[in-house]
Amino acid sequence: MAQKLTRENAEKILRNVDNFLFDCDGVLWDGNGPIKGSLETVMRLKELGKRVFHVTNNSLHTREHFVKKCANYGYQVKQDEILCTAWIAAEYLRSKSFKDKVYVMGLKESMGEELNAFGIKNTGAGSDPLVGTSYGDWLEGVKLDPEVKCVLVGFDPHISYMKLMRATSYLKKPDCLFIATNTDNLLPVKNTDISIPDAGCMVSALTVASGREPIVMGKPAPNMFEVLREVHNLDPSRCMMVGDRLDTDIMFAKNCGMQSLLVLSGISSVDDVEQAPNTSEAVDSRPDFYAENLAELGKFIVGN
Amino acid sequence: MAQKLTRENAEKILRNVDNFLFDCDGVLWDGNGPIKGSLETVMRLKELGKRVFHVTNNSLHTREHFVKKCANYGYQVKQDEILCTAWIAAEYLRSKSFKDKVYVMGLKESMGEELNAFGIKNTGAGSDPLVGTSYGDWLEGVKLDPEVKCVLVGFDPHISYMKLMRATSYLKKPDCLFIATNTDNLLPVKNTDISIPDAGCMVSALTVASGREPIVMGKPAPNMFEVLREVHNLDPSRCMMVGDRLDTDIMFAKNCGMQSLLVLSGISSVDDVEQAPNTSEAVDSRPDFYAENLAELGKFIVGN
Repeated sequence: MAQKLTRENAEKILRNVDNFLFDCDGVLWDGNGPIKGSLETVMRLKELGKRVFHVTNNSLHTREHFVKKCANYGYQVKQDEILCTAWIAAEYLRSKSFKDKVYVMGLKESMGEELNAFGIKNTGAGSDPLVGTSYGDWLEGVKLDPEVKCVLVGFDPHISYMKLMRATSYLKKPDCLFIATNTDNLLPVKNTDISIPDAGCMVSALTVASGREPIVMGKPAPNMFEVLREVHNLDPSRCMMVGDRLDTDIMFAKNCGMQSLLVLSGISSVDDVEQAPNTSEAVDSRPDFYAENLAELGKFIVGN
Repeated sequence: MAQKLTRENAEKILRNVDNFLFDCDGVLWDGNGPIKGSLETVMRLKELGKRVFHVTNNSLHTREHFVKKCANYGYQVKQDEILCTAWIAAEYLRSKSFKDKVYVMGLKESMGEELNAFGIKNTGAGSDPLVGTSYGDWLEGVKLDPEVKCVLVGFDPHISYMKLMRATSYLKKPDCLFIATNTDNLLPVKNTDISIPDAGCMVSALTVASGREPIVMGKPAPNMFEVLREVHNLDPSRCMMVGDRLDTDIMFAKNCGMQSLLVLSGISSVDDVEQAPNTSEAVDSRPDFYAENLAELGKFIVGN
């Protein structure tokens, strides 16, 4: 049963949690900038001696970008306190000693850069507009690179038919890895009628065309936590995941054995919590606690 | 139990079937032109007094285009003998007395044209390249048209992020219809390493982003048969569907109460027939008969 955050259980959280993992979009900031009181709360937790990490499914940016973004908001973060899916995909390939080339359906400035930083050969990131007007033109336009042994797909605003053809063609080879950064359906934006489709959109197009299922790097899969655990020797029972989505953040907490706090400043609502599946442990996405926003937690821990 | 086509059961088919419905790609032709002996077989059936229709999920072309394509192959067909999904989508909206505007994620020269032919207002078909480099640019670039009350998605080689944003945004309105021409994953091509993703790719991207399921026009849904039945007063038990895919053509036959013949000149193989689900009537995709190609049927009916 999810509990509404109160002063009493906030104090209990402070006693029982050493490490806080924060989702970013919808928790720390949204399309309009920082969410009021959020960064202050994180800084206060640091002052109280808590370790803080940032764990985001967002595949639009490098870790370096996140460090700069935080700095712009007056919040100092180190690179190894940030885990994002463009980086974790590159880290995953490094851990597998991948030596071939990656076809990237995603952004050059995030997915391409993170691969480059590990010295992993890659191609495809960026724009790739349609060539010609017929089957024949397209077939001719797609020159497959025999070195490619992995298709990596993430958020791709340059999605094009040429890219879908190339990626699907590579995926015909059974020894070609198929990796997705994340499968979120929408990016969180507020106060607009416009929906901003996220990587889930590109991933499902490829899943349908190829008939294959990707290995997904982002939450709720435990990849990002595994890296943190290895490097920082974290005990999951002393960790709390703070997020705005039941299906990614809270499931991630469950999958990794962490405590969880849902904030209502992003995607999921109190109604979602009440309707969340709880028929078995495998699909229980109810958080331990929920609060309007991160500022609430901050309010309750001011005196500590 | 699917039976291999023999002279004996071909003759039985001739006695029991008045109307033949043919899938096109993979049955009459493929990316390389007519499949040897196929069109001759169809013409022979016509000479024998059979009524012949063409029922294709392909959303790349208008009915007019199909008429011309057949004529180029020396095969004369009338427009009302052809049912394709770009046309059936327009026909469906006409039958619902749809008076608003359609946002088309698909080809202008097929889906746009078929809507125009019925006088149905539409927008979006054709190319719509990415504007700018950030969230803000994209949001600004998407001007929603308040008249739009339907999103129609089909094969779209001009797929772009702007289109995905527009379509997903329109679909936020619960009164906006969501129609897909077809959900085939690939177009049939042979003798190449390149895969040609079909409309299923675009449909799934929108399904994921919008969280909605479209009404699908193409096979295996019965829409195209319903129109034929109404106009030509067909008795389904005296109809045979001839196709190359279990999941579309043969399921279509089952859904409409028709007899079925699978030809192995396209997507599905004998192995697929043997592994086809048959646990209940609702998912039984085994054909009544199967043959290497349409020429086989032709061979057996030569003497008639």
